[in-house]
Amino acid sequence: MLSVENNELLTRTGSGTPMGQLLRRYWVPALLSEEVAEPQCAPVRLTLMGESLVVFRTADGRLGALEEHCAHRQASLYYGRNESEESRDGQCGLRCVYHGWKYGIDGRCIDMPNEPATSKFKEHIRIRSYPVAERGDMIWIYLGPSRDIPALPDLEWAVIPETHRYLSKRLQRSNFAQAMEGGIDSSHVSFLHSDARLWNPDWTHAKDSTRDHLTDDGSPKFFVEPTDYGMLIGARRNAVDGQYYWRITQWLMPWYNLVARDGDGPITAHAWVPIDDENCWAFSITYNPDKALTKEQTDHYRHGGSVHAQVLADGSYLPTRNSDNDYLIDRTLQKTVSFTGIRGIAIQDVAMQESMGRVVDRTKEHLGSSDAAVIAARKRLLAEARALAEDATVAPSGLDPASQRVRSASAILPRDVSWVDATAESRQAAQRHYQPS
Amino acid sequence: MLSVENNELLTRTGSGTPMGQLLRRYWVPALLSEEVAEPQCAPVRLTLMGESLVVFRTADGRLGALEEHCAHRQASLYYGRNESEESRDGQCGLRCVYHGWKYGIDGRCIDMPNEPATSKFKEHIRIRSYPVAERGDMIWIYLGPSRDIPALPDLEWAVIPETHRYLSKRLQRSNFAQAMEGGIDSSHVSFLHSDARLWNPDWTHAKDSTRDHLTDDGSPKFFVEPTDYGMLIGARRNAVDGQYYWRITQWLMPWYNLVARDGDGPITAHAWVPIDDENCWAFSITYNPDKALTKEQTDHYRHGGSVHAQVLADGSYLPTRNSDNDYLIDRTLQKTVSFTGIRGIAIQDVAMQESMGRVVDRTKEHLGSSDAAVIAARKRLLAEARALAEDATVAPSGLDPASQRVRSASAILPRDVSWVDATAESRQAAQRHYQPS
Amino acid sequence: MLSVENNELLTRTGSGTPMGQLLRRYWVPALLSEEVAEPQCAPVRLTLMGESLVVFRTADGRLGALEEHCAHRQASLYYGRNESEESRDGQCGLRCVYHGWKYGIDGRCIDMPNEPATSKFKEHIRIRSYPVAERGDMIWIYLGPSRDIPALPDLEWAVIPETHRYLSKRLQRSNFAQAMEGGIDSSHVSFLHSDARLWNPDWTHAKDSTRDHLTDDGSPKFFVEPTDYGMLIGARRNAVDGQYYWRITQWLMPWYNLVARDGDGPITAHAWVPIDDENCWAFSITYNPDKALTKEQTDHYRHGGSVHAQVLADGSYLPTRNSDNDYLIDRTLQKTVSFTGIRGIAIQDVAMQESMGRVVDRTKEHLGSSDAAVIAARKRLLAEARALAEDATVAPSGLDPASQRVRSASAILPRDVSWVDATAESRQAAQRHYQPS
Repeated sequence: MLSVENNELLTRTGSGTPMGQLLRRYWVPALLSEEVAEPQCAPVRLTLMGESLVVFRTADGRLGALEEHCAHRQASLYYGRNESEESRDGQCGLRCVYHGWKYGIDGRCIDMPNEPATSKFKEHIRIRSYPVAERGDMIWIYLGPSRDIPALPDLEWAVIPETHRYLSKRLQRSNFAQAMEGGIDSSHVSFLHSDARLWNPDWTHAKDSTRDHLTDDGSPKFFVEPTDYGMLIGARRNAVDGQYYWRITQWLMPWYNLVARDGDGPITAHAWVPIDDENCWAFSITYNPDKALTKEQTDHYRHGGSVHAQVLADGSYLPTRNSDNDYLIDRTLQKTVSFTGIRGIAIQDVAMQESMGRVVDRTKEHLGSSDAAVIAARKRLLAEARALAEDATVAPSGLDPASQRVRSASAILPRDVSWVDATAESRQAAQRHYQPS
Repeated sequence: MLSVENNELLTRTGSGTPMGQLLRRYWVPALLSEEVAEPQCAPVRLTLMGESLVVFRTADGRLGALEEHCAHRQASLYYGRNESEESRDGQCGLRCVYHGWKYGIDGRCIDMPNEPATSKFKEHIRIRSYPVAERGDMIWIYLGPSRDIPALPDLEWAVIPETHRYLSKRLQRSNFAQAMEGGIDSSHVSFLHSDARLWNPDWTHAKDSTRDHLTDDGSPKFFVEPTDYGMLIGARRNAVDGQYYWRITQWLMPWYNLVARDGDGPITAHAWVPIDDENCWAFSITYNPDKALTKEQTDHYRHGGSVHAQVLADGSYLPTRNSDNDYLIDRTLQKTVSFTGIRGIAIQDVAMQESMGRVVDRTKEHLGSSDAAVIAARKRLLAEARALAEDATVAPSGLDPASQRVRSASAILPRDVSWVDATAESRQAAQRHYQPS
Repeated sequence: MLSVENNELLTRTGSGTPMGQLLRRYWVPALLSEEVAEPQCAPVRLTLMGESLVVFRTADGRLGALEEHCAHRQASLYYGRNESEESRDGQCGLRCVYHGWKYGIDGRCIDMPNEPATSKFKEHIRIRSYPVAERGDMIWIYLGPSRDIPALPDLEWAVIPETHRYLSKRLQRSNFAQAMEGGIDSSHVSFLHSDARLWNPDWTHAKDSTRDHLTDDGSPKFFVEPTDYGMLIGARRNAVDGQYYWRITQWLMPWYNLVARDGDGPITAHAWVPIDDENCWAFSITYNPDKALTKEQTDHYRHGGSVHAQVLADGSYLPTRNSDNDYLIDRTLQKTVSFTGIRGIAIQDVAMQESMGRVVDRTKEHLGSSDAAVIAARKRLLAEARALAEDATVAPSGLDPASQRVRSASAILPRDVSWVDATAESRQAAQRHYQPS
């Protein structure tokens, strides 16, 4: 459990909060590339940690991320015109349709047609622009101090060929921390997702014994190894012949998970991004570092298979199965082939995490031995947020791209073998994916 | 009118409030039995006086009422599995689907499969369980201190054969007190329900003169007799031949009404239960202590006749005619055969009580002589809440089942006859309905 | 920009606020006459500056405006009966359907049928009634102190024959001040409404050169002349042959605009009325002082042409194109024939003004030279609100009907000609429209 104070510290991400300050030191996975796919596309509205932005791709293909409102009278630039160089001022940029003020991707006002041609007023106008980048079919935005912009994350899924990965996004109506804790805690897989074979084609290919270990031993012992990038987490279950079955997940600062990998199958990754303190984006990525995903796989993901969810077609990214309809829980299914009666791994997670309340009251929880990794991640985040609040020059951890080149794993090992040593090689991302810096 | 302070005292029912403490000393009519009809049914979510619960019937037929959230990580037990003795732990209970913690109806954790088999952790885990009982096709829950659990109410409608009663339930979007005051105040019947013959088949059978008295004399004089169980209320109207027409209603602590009975026709009862301070459940019961209701009668009630309301099919119990659609008021009907243009007695009441605002501002009201019973009920509740807040050992009134065995009545009496004496016999519930204690 | 304090002062209109006190000294355009067209019509609910009212027309044709709730138990009089002289008390009035209390248009309780016939209680009961009047197909209500009721406004559109005007009403989900500022600021016309010919048949008839001036010179210079009634505003643009093109709008205290008139075409007027601090009514009037509007014109307005908007059929007056559907912005249209891609002048305004937030944060704005009139109007309102708050006997400006008899105008003038002098005659409303007082 956490004190009221620590629960607030962990969950509040506004610009004036310690956790908000810490999180702003990292690049934020913000949009799927497909949302701003075309040059001169319609601007996209976006809220990140309580800040309202518009994101757009200029006619000449550059990305812009600006504060949402025009400096003049605060009309939303979402309704703005994404203009090309053929416009009256000869530049690419976003023009407010109220009085025509136009901004470049650096936030500078580049045209102010409702002022006299001789006016210098526009030179004094600059709205906030955010560094924005594209990598791995993802748009990344940086909301922190400009003197401290880190390198883009070298997460393996973001640097492999696009044929090797599948990304999806959904809106979760809860604080980001309780969503992320679900990703850190692999013990719930034995229960909440015990019907996973129904939803995950990847596991159909996995050895049956893998799933059996999960079902047979629901009380893994957790081992947590702090690392530069975050934490390496080993969940040890009993296996046949007196061996141990190890599920090895990764948590990367400040909001990334890698689910334990089964054999050489695809790896599942997540990113949990605060929209505000009561909502978050869940990005889910399935990738195979070594080969392209098959059409069968991506078709399945697109229909809500594995960790992906089908979402409404209204642009909200709210799953079709959501709290408004009790996730379409099927009580007959729950009595027969499914532990939960809820269809789909992602939705099973959402149902649990949203049912805790928008911001779970951690003063009421009772953590057990399988929560060791959750406890460690909280401690890490709270300590780093406090340290940064006390001294703004402290460097947050996990910002070195080289340290992020890791994978999750799993292994069946004799009892006397070190899980860390034995899986060291398989946890290394392939060097071929990374450009020399 | 009430002071701001007294209005707050009357209407706030959270666990920390004086009224909340008083109301928690009584069994709460909480659900219709049909909502948890089958053994091993799906759990039902429920909020009572601001507290969130799940209610379920075990595979072996017992009832459970638990706080909604799992002690582990606060996931909702609403999505839980209602498991039988054939489960791995051999016991009936409700299992959280996040990590598998399972609870018996006493709130004790009886299985914790994500902890090692040797762990004693589960012995320290107990969530709040509430005493729960079934009587009269109603599920009753007790939210108060365990040392003070009273006997179940001996309301006549709850102990007669089920063929003799009809129950319905609806959501009212107002504080419980203003709903209940509508039940105490029988003077509005002459106005709001002056078209009652259109909606009430029972009154079609009643003598026309009964309704005529109500219409002919709209200013009854109220007489209130405090009783052990609450209040006996006589509303005196002028009748033919210099006699008095008496409508005699009952108010039983802390939230029950019996509408005045017409002759030996069915009796109407209500219970007004706080969900939170801005919503309440209205339970309505029509019963005949002496004989079974006819199919014609129950069909009529089912379609919103008499005091019953048709509700939406989405499980919300919100009436189909509600504030979102102005109760489908028909202004043409209002100008012709109906005083209100609102169809149905229940909806007429709801429209008035909800239109006052979620919590009516009683500092603005102007009470007249026909509000004597409302005033007396408020005083009783306020006094008992204050007394209990000052001394938690004070026994609230109306907890003796023997005192609750009463009926409502009506009578036409000569002027010099005591209404209390003359109706004493008809106000006694039939002793045959009560088991020797 | 405004300070936080001044922004609050400008936008808060509750009865206890300085701006609320100032605005209450003026007649409020409150309803279209058609909403209470028939004698003995259904009452209409209405909120003005946070106060809830019911408005109705009696059986004998008089108008009533009462506080919404019955003095007895606070049930809403919206559900009340609008009774004629044929009722039991022989008077016209509004009767609460809960217990039958009935009120005359002066707010006095004229019947209290649930009290004994001998009771004098009703003589002590009077709810708040508001002076109400009808002029120009509009219902006007006065919410201020009764000793200071001004004469009804002599706005020209309200006194011309009804054939000469068209009124519409829509709900805007923003504070009234930012809506009104859009009406004062004519510089946005060159941008936001640069596609106006698509939506405005009146402008199709106007000389093409008029629109060209607007498009050719987007940076008008503003000249503001304070007047008794408010402000005369001249926006000067460069025109052909070294002349100036003047668009001359009027702002009348406290919430009226007249859009610059093109030639002798119809004039557009607006009134912006606070519902509460986050919503306002926008009344839009197109009128021709000299002749009847054609059926072609009124048909066009009815379908959302010119400054009018199509609204939902549910009685909410919310436009069909609203923030819930992003005003049905058409991004293809935005790239081709329309600057905004938003269909209709009114909706273009709404989109901008609502996108600023319910109450725009004026501490963040950056005003330029084209905002001179907006700045002046704010200063006037703030100064008058402060003066009245300090001394309640101060007379607000703009209350003299004679001063309100003005029109907007436009003109192409040589550079050395005074716009004020040159347009003086065309800005006078026709005296024939005004009755001798």
